[in-house]
Amino acid sequence: MSVITVERKILEKNDEVANQNRRAFAEHGVFAINIVSSPGAGKTSLLEQTIERLKGKLDLAVIEGDVQTDLDAQRVARYNVPAIQIVTRGGCHLEAGLVREALQNIDLSTIKILIIENVGNLVCPANYDLGEAAKVVVASTTEGDDKPLKYPAMFRNASVLIINKIDLLPYIKADLATLRRNALSINPSLKVFETSCTTGAGIEEWCEWLRGQVGERS
Amino acid sequence: MSVITVERKILEKNDEVANQNRRAFAEHGVFAINIVSSPGAGKTSLLEQTIERLKGKLDLAVIEGDVQTDLDAQRVARYNVPAIQIVTRGGCHLEAGLVREALQNIDLSTIKILIIENVGNLVCPANYDLGEAAKVVVASTTEGDDKPLKYPAMFRNASVLIINKIDLLPYIKADLATLRRNALSINPSLKVFETSCTTGAGIEEWCEWLRGQVGERS
Repeated sequence: MSVITVERKILEKNDEVANQNRRAFAEHGVFAINIVSSPGAGKTSLLEQTIERLKGKLDLAVIEGDVQTDLDAQRVARYNVPAIQIVTRGGCHLEAGLVREALQNIDLSTIKILIIENVGNLVCPANYDLGEAAKVVVASTTEGDDKPLKYPAMFRNASVLIINKIDLLPYIKADLATLRRNALSINPSLKVFETSCTTGAGIEEWCEWLRGQVGERS
Repeated sequence: MSVITVERKILEKNDEVANQNRRAFAEHGVFAINIVSSPGAGKTSLLEQTIERLKGKLDLAVIEGDVQTDLDAQRVARYNVPAIQIVTRGGCHLEAGLVREALQNIDLSTIKILIIENVGNLVCPANYDLGEAAKVVVASTTEGDDKPLKYPAMFRNASVLIINKIDLLPYIKADLATLRRNALSINPSLKVFETSCTTGAGIEEWCEWLRGQVGERS
């Protein structure tokens, strides 16, 4: 079918550019992550907390992907780190080519970590490699504990799962152990963190892991 | 560009089939709604509460759209209403053709309301007409009050906004008035309901509206 052929070609072209991005990151010793989640799972809040903790100790830059508005880049820019906004104007995921364009505005030789915040979408970004070293999926407890089973591709393709909004567990039906079990049933090698951007729980462990990744590469 | 041409053709074909569905609904006096939201906003919980209240008074059927699993159809089937599951196997939205296929398993002459629960995705389902009379977008308070600005197409194309999980407002930063104002700034004609599937708040108003829609058409 022609549509499928077009889609395959798009993915092949994307993978080619993603590999170019990956080589650029490797040349400069930059650890790049691609943060994905449903809308409102807390990616930007997590990013703010992460920057707050790493700033001054580890140089980083941020690429923000949004369907519309530069609200997220504005939030991040307040922390005085380089923040590039990509507005997809309706597009449901970031592609490697968009990241490559954004990279023209970032001097990779001055940073150690690049954080790419993808469009809020638990389906489409799963299959688009951006050249990252790790895909980090954020699942908030309020979305329910069945999401890994219902959106398996994203959890299968991720290296890290951050279970966010654990402070809300007392007020909702979702069960943390079930969420964790469901995620690991899809991808047993997921590295799992449990966080709350409201209380700060788990953020230090997550940042410690990030620091470790850079350490290993330098 | 060839990709854009293919996409336009897909949308045109979809609209054609959607109009066929729409005519079938009209012939049988069926009020069809297409419920859309982010993953975990509470579409299925809302559906359960709606069925519970309308059952016995108004005949309805449900079409469940999911990327994977028939968990949602299982939940709905417990209420003894016809429930057809569409598994998209990675597809990020329902299309009119999939709904048409599902309709082969539903006798439209026996129902008054058809509820189609779309794939959890605040981006892609926005542009795919299924033949529904109304698109209903569910936004949960825990996703934050900025979502209408960041995902405008969905709010622009919807007739109804259900702000769900209002019971969690005391524990989060999101502001109900801001969420409502942002949504109405994108689409001033949105009919807005505020609900909680945990406390039952607002569900009766929503069901009353649904009953009114059927009344108007019979």
